[in-house]
Amino acid sequence: METQAGFLPRPSADLLAQLEHIYQDLHANPELSMQEHRTAAIAAAWLRQQGYEVTEGVGGTGVVGVLRNGDGPVVLLRADMDALPIQESTGLPYASDKTGTDRFGQATSIAHSCGHDMHVAWLMGVACILAENRPAWRGTVMAVFQPGEETGQGARAMIEDGMVKRFPRPDVTLGQHVMPLSAGQIGWRTGTILSAGDSWEVTMFGRGAHGSMPQKSIDPVVMAASAVMRLQTVVSREVAMTEAAVVTVGTLRAGMSENVIPDRALLRLNVRTFKTEVRTRVLAAVKRILEAEAQASGAPKPPEFSVLSEFPLTRNDEAATRKVVAALEQHFGADRVSEISPATASEDFGLFGTAWNTPSVFWMIGGIDPVRYEEAVKAGKVDELPANHAPDFAPVIDPTLRTGIEAMLTAASAWLCRGGTGAV
Amino acid sequence: METQAGFLPRPSADLLAQLEHIYQDLHANPELSMQEHRTAAIAAAWLRQQGYEVTEGVGGTGVVGVLRNGDGPVVLLRADMDALPIQESTGLPYASDKTGTDRFGQATSIAHSCGHDMHVAWLMGVACILAENRPAWRGTVMAVFQPGEETGQGARAMIEDGMVKRFPRPDVTLGQHVMPLSAGQIGWRTGTILSAGDSWEVTMFGRGAHGSMPQKSIDPVVMAASAVMRLQTVVSREVAMTEAAVVTVGTLRAGMSENVIPDRALLRLNVRTFKTEVRTRVLAAVKRILEAEAQASGAPKPPEFSVLSEFPLTRNDEAATRKVVAALEQHFGADRVSEISPATASEDFGLFGTAWNTPSVFWMIGGIDPVRYEEAVKAGKVDELPANHAPDFAPVIDPTLRTGIEAMLTAASAWLCRGGTGAV
Amino acid sequence: METQAGFLPRPSADLLAQLEHIYQDLHANPELSMQEHRTAAIAAAWLRQQGYEVTEGVGGTGVVGVLRNGDGPVVLLRADMDALPIQESTGLPYASDKTGTDRFGQATSIAHSCGHDMHVAWLMGVACILAENRPAWRGTVMAVFQPGEETGQGARAMIEDGMVKRFPRPDVTLGQHVMPLSAGQIGWRTGTILSAGDSWEVTMFGRGAHGSMPQKSIDPVVMAASAVMRLQTVVSREVAMTEAAVVTVGTLRAGMSENVIPDRALLRLNVRTFKTEVRTRVLAAVKRILEAEAQASGAPKPPEFSVLSEFPLTRNDEAATRKVVAALEQHFGADRVSEISPATASEDFGLFGTAWNTPSVFWMIGGIDPVRYEEAVKAGKVDELPANHAPDFAPVIDPTLRTGIEAMLTAASAWLCRGGTGAV
Amino acid sequence: METQAGFLPRPSADLLAQLEHIYQDLHANPELSMQEHRTAAIAAAWLRQQGYEVTEGVGGTGVVGVLRNGDGPVVLLRADMDALPIQESTGLPYASDKTGTDRFGQATSIAHSCGHDMHVAWLMGVACILAENRPAWRGTVMAVFQPGEETGQGARAMIEDGMVKRFPRPDVTLGQHVMPLSAGQIGWRTGTILSAGDSWEVTMFGRGAHGSMPQKSIDPVVMAASAVMRLQTVVSREVAMTEAAVVTVGTLRAGMSENVIPDRALLRLNVRTFKTEVRTRVLAAVKRILEAEAQASGAPKPPEFSVLSEFPLTRNDEAATRKVVAALEQHFGADRVSEISPATASEDFGLFGTAWNTPSVFWMIGGIDPVRYEEAVKAGKVDELPANHAPDFAPVIDPTLRTGIEAMLTAASAWLCRGGTGAV
Repeated sequence: METQAGFLPRPSADLLAQLEHIYQDLHANPELSMQEHRTAAIAAAWLRQQGYEVTEGVGGTGVVGVLRNGDGPVVLLRADMDALPIQESTGLPYASDKTGTDRFGQATSIAHSCGHDMHVAWLMGVACILAENRPAWRGTVMAVFQPGEETGQGARAMIEDGMVKRFPRPDVTLGQHVMPLSAGQIGWRTGTILSAGDSWEVTMFGRGAHGSMPQKSIDPVVMAASAVMRLQTVVSREVAMTEAAVVTVGTLRAGMSENVIPDRALLRLNVRTFKTEVRTRVLAAVKRILEAEAQASGAPKPPEFSVLSEFPLTRNDEAATRKVVAALEQHFGADRVSEISPATASEDFGLFGTAWNTPSVFWMIGGIDPVRYEEAVKAGKVDELPANHAPDFAPVIDPTLRTGIEAMLTAASAWLCRGGTGAV
Repeated sequence: METQAGFLPRPSADLLAQLEHIYQDLHANPELSMQEHRTAAIAAAWLRQQGYEVTEGVGGTGVVGVLRNGDGPVVLLRADMDALPIQESTGLPYASDKTGTDRFGQATSIAHSCGHDMHVAWLMGVACILAENRPAWRGTVMAVFQPGEETGQGARAMIEDGMVKRFPRPDVTLGQHVMPLSAGQIGWRTGTILSAGDSWEVTMFGRGAHGSMPQKSIDPVVMAASAVMRLQTVVSREVAMTEAAVVTVGTLRAGMSENVIPDRALLRLNVRTFKTEVRTRVLAAVKRILEAEAQASGAPKPPEFSVLSEFPLTRNDEAATRKVVAALEQHFGADRVSEISPATASEDFGLFGTAWNTPSVFWMIGGIDPVRYEEAVKAGKVDELPANHAPDFAPVIDPTLRTGIEAMLTAASAWLCRGGTGAV
Repeated sequence: METQAGFLPRPSADLLAQLEHIYQDLHANPELSMQEHRTAAIAAAWLRQQGYEVTEGVGGTGVVGVLRNGDGPVVLLRADMDALPIQESTGLPYASDKTGTDRFGQATSIAHSCGHDMHVAWLMGVACILAENRPAWRGTVMAVFQPGEETGQGARAMIEDGMVKRFPRPDVTLGQHVMPLSAGQIGWRTGTILSAGDSWEVTMFGRGAHGSMPQKSIDPVVMAASAVMRLQTVVSREVAMTEAAVVTVGTLRAGMSENVIPDRALLRLNVRTFKTEVRTRVLAAVKRILEAEAQASGAPKPPEFSVLSEFPLTRNDEAATRKVVAALEQHFGADRVSEISPATASEDFGLFGTAWNTPSVFWMIGGIDPVRYEEAVKAGKVDELPANHAPDFAPVIDPTLRTGIEAMLTAASAWLCRGGTGAV
Repeated sequence: METQAGFLPRPSADLLAQLEHIYQDLHANPELSMQEHRTAAIAAAWLRQQGYEVTEGVGGTGVVGVLRNGDGPVVLLRADMDALPIQESTGLPYASDKTGTDRFGQATSIAHSCGHDMHVAWLMGVACILAENRPAWRGTVMAVFQPGEETGQGARAMIEDGMVKRFPRPDVTLGQHVMPLSAGQIGWRTGTILSAGDSWEVTMFGRGAHGSMPQKSIDPVVMAASAVMRLQTVVSREVAMTEAAVVTVGTLRAGMSENVIPDRALLRLNVRTFKTEVRTRVLAAVKRILEAEAQASGAPKPPEFSVLSEFPLTRNDEAATRKVVAALEQHFGADRVSEISPATASEDFGLFGTAWNTPSVFWMIGGIDPVRYEEAVKAGKVDELPANHAPDFAPVIDPTLRTGIEAMLTAASAWLCRGGTGAV
């Protein structure tokens, strides 16, 4: 019995050349989260050109392109579009020198240090091949170009903008991410593949006073410092040795002058977990501690918490993942398709599957030059290769571009019906 | 035997009216530390008009006016000129709406919330009366308009600019400050009247990493937080119950994002003490703790310390102070001249006396409306009256302006020789 | 006008010799707080022999001797009797080698390292001279030998045992303490002379677990450690630079094994203050912090507090103190009677004055050999002389014994009426 | 092909009855680590009776019995003998009411709360069956009754006492432990099965002083408290989310009085890890922090560290474990033999294998009544079943006794040669 994989052609040299050009242009013109106007316009124009029904402005700058091609399953293919507030240091000819203003109002450089430009190019390639080969398959493809993944805003914004009601319910949602694996390699995992990520901004309130009169103050610097020390105990005392959690206070800001006690302190913190029950306990402990620290100081009011982002666990459906892996192994050979450990990164991709209550699968595509990767393995320095969010991270275009297009096409074809003479 | 006090006239109504106008203009046009160009120009022009030899630009914007009036003692009279990075809230018709850029590069409102505008007006009045009454006295008067007192930069800058070599050695240096005492009242003290103030900026170095990988970081947020907690022990454990010290960390800044561990933390701290040996021990303890905290974290290098300001103890010479107090009591009556406790504020006035190794005396002039002050006393709320550096602090012009002029004139006359027929 | 001082004779050489013998015996036979059976029996027998009405067992081992000698003021003279759980290291021929069991059930050495044995000898001498010279004075003398001063239990126990109802109301209560001043010298002060002292035992509750499973515990070691760090902020942030307070956690005990997380931690802490409002604020802050730390840990219940001791401020009545000082200066000469700073030690002597609402005066008697003291002054090492509670502290008998007897006799005679027809 | 398993008989009813009696006697007469005199004597007498060459007093109370039975492999079978300083609360008729003195000099109850009495009974049974069935096998069996496992002293002591030189080198070392699995079940794992455990006693040195004079002290209570807080950061910041470590400070003891600052603090801490590189990093961080905390306090000398115990990782040789598992599955059926996760407990069993550089295998035998276990599973409360070291932990005798004997006999027979007519 022939499997479904393989009934769609590989990308042509022409298409790859065109997409490489587009990729370099996107890389040189990165846009911050929820500001992806130029990128979205490029994706939308491309989809229209291929004959997709295109909806723009979904949840801000989101783009949804639907290609209905006869009866059959509905497959959602997702790419995220946003870049990071980072100063690129790759030295590439197409490196970014763009700047902008981030969500905290800070001026910043911008760079595609997480590789979403590659994700966009992949999905554009997949969309094109599907459109140009309609006779070969049946079903509906929904290409989703999502804004604001880095800040956890985009998938939520699209869903809150009516995604579920406005578009067909998919039978499966598929997504992929470039990672510091050897280029040409694919990594998969059933169950939890990415951690949940919860980020809070916390304001702790004290009372200001001149630095010489602490007795008139409620010192928020001391309050916040004590809170930071206490927060270390969440992981060290409240999470079992055999479970995993991280609580990072990435930002602590209070005061400006040396001799004026400020009236508040700002903390921004991030929690990562791999299990719902661990997440629940950790978040409750963080809240309990911050509130008690305010009480220990005699604070005039409890801390204020606001959610900066809330990334769910990225969990791959067991059966759907097996189906994807079988197709990938047949297409690429088993030696290019490996099971990987869960990663401590987070994604909002999973929200689509949850919103429609439909299985979803997310996998990893290597982006590191294979020779360089091999050398790092030999030297025991794989950990030191540039990873996502490092200023010098950028995938090698070949074979990364090709591999991602083929992988998503192959995964999609595991659901889509074979076209042709009516055979299924 | 007649005392020296009283051989100089009180300010005329005309002079007071003129100075009130000048005071209001200065108040409405405050200038930040080391940027007192307009104020200095006003003072210099005034001194020149009175016949002083005027040197401008001493230590930046400092002004020194010398009036040589025959043989006799040299008396240095000092006023400071700078305002504060504060948004004034007095609601006065002549309130400031000026803005500028502070020493940390931050945009800020500016206000004369410490009353240095009054100090300038006082010394202008004193300079005028001395100049207009040369026959009544003999000696040399040196009027010093100092920049940058608030930041502890000004006196040092003037001294480093050759003050001691370029100008006559005074027999005494005299200074006065407006304070939240009842207007018309004068406060004095022998020995230590103001605390030493030492301010440091400290950078603690860690290693940055993604928030999900603390094991790759040396977390400077935790390092700084632990340091802040440990610094509390300097006062609680290393200073005797019967001694006094304050260690305030007014600023703690690290990171910007919630999920990126930064690579350093910035602290700005201020230490106040009343005794040299306590100061020495406290500063050593602060340094020891910050260095050990870096070691506890395994920091890549020790903290870097830079001195933001270094205010000496303001100590009044015993004999010179008794001389000033005797003159003041004779002029104002003993009920307007009171001994006060040392204050936790700091001044760089003392550096002049130290530079020339000459006695110095510093005293306080009340600035609060007497009726309001009395009500606060009755209500037990003297502590709640607006104090220096509060946004709603501003002295009542009358009798504060008059009192300060007469007080400095009286104190100066305790050294200057009586003029006329040679009698002393 | 002749003062009252001086109408009673100085101690005879015979009496001094007898008292020296008694003192050495008491020194060699110290008894812990509330266990002063032998000492009390010696004092009671002595008083009876002199003709006093003696009541024993007041508040445990307290002894009250009343000598009614005609109309006139009532004067309470107090000595405390208890020793300390300390291993004496004086090397004196009459040093203690006694042992016993302290209030926490611990076996311990015992020594009179606070000099209460001298206090007992002083009061025995005074009682004897008063009894033997009844014609010279009129009034009532009440000699009080108090137990348990070190633990703050004794004065309270006597008062709770009906002291106020069972004995005459004194016109003044007088007490004195041997201190590391030069022997022969007397130190006095109006107002606060000794700090208030509050000691608490605090149990913080967690939940025990095996050391490998902190997630099943609520770790009381971490809870107590965080509490200790936070308690440092009471003095560093909540007490003004110009006020005085000490918060010492003298004991922290939790767990026994290295790999079992215990279920509770024990803290014993001591607070010293010189002002009622500072004491109130500090004690409230200590309680607030300990309770909030339990909450930060998610403790199963709030900490339990028990008062170990509660020493009031020792405050000398202004008028009564002036009266004592005038008498002492006349008797000893002004150069042996000096004003001193408040000491950080604490006493329960003040409770008697409070209980009867009567003025009280407490002063210090030097006990250090004058030659040794003088050398320490010259070397700037007065601070290093053995002080009360040091294992090598013991007063020189001469002139300390004599001075204390004469001082108390002189102070008492400032209240007692002169007797007879002018006879002395 | 017939496997080796099964050529030795199961224990007879008589033997089981005899061993049950012995087990109950051992349980009622527990002995603390390195004090197992009675237990060792019972084991030695038993071995002698069976014809083993017996050496007593190896490493204190260790017993080694060697049974040479022709050419063939040498198999080391190990049981540990010591009990715990715990008050038993099982309510069993044969519960312990014994008391003794632990290694810290504390009086304590003693109980077999870790099940080593069962281990002794198992090995006695195995030794008997092997001795009674010599014709059935060939090779050498070495029965090792080890002291002091709980304190990590025993295996080390035996090895330091010449174990390797005095006895034959085994081809494999085998050990087993009773655990809160369902009785009759066996758990196994290749690679790391138990964590490394390192326990240190740390003395931090300060300087003592009266509680009112912290400035004369270097407060070890504050030093230790700060150290405990800082130690939390080892797990929270220096161990990757995906790695495992525990750092528990089980004991913190400083001071006795509330108003005396002690001169030192005692900490006892325990570290658990599953990987050598994590262990190395964690132990280095603990040391670094404790030393830096002493420096932060200005301690008179660095902390003193002493190793309380040092349990290696218990790692099962891959090939040897597969061999044991195959034999167990054949004997018990696959449904009674399951792979388990690594446990956070520690053992010194691995030291024997390391000393001889020979493979070792350690497995778990269930001890919980199966009905009770099943109910706990259904209620989701397996975690709440009494576990080793709980005062109410004790295995059910049947089938635990039988299962352990058969398991060890089966595992041994996977190495021993089959006897009889020479066939293997």
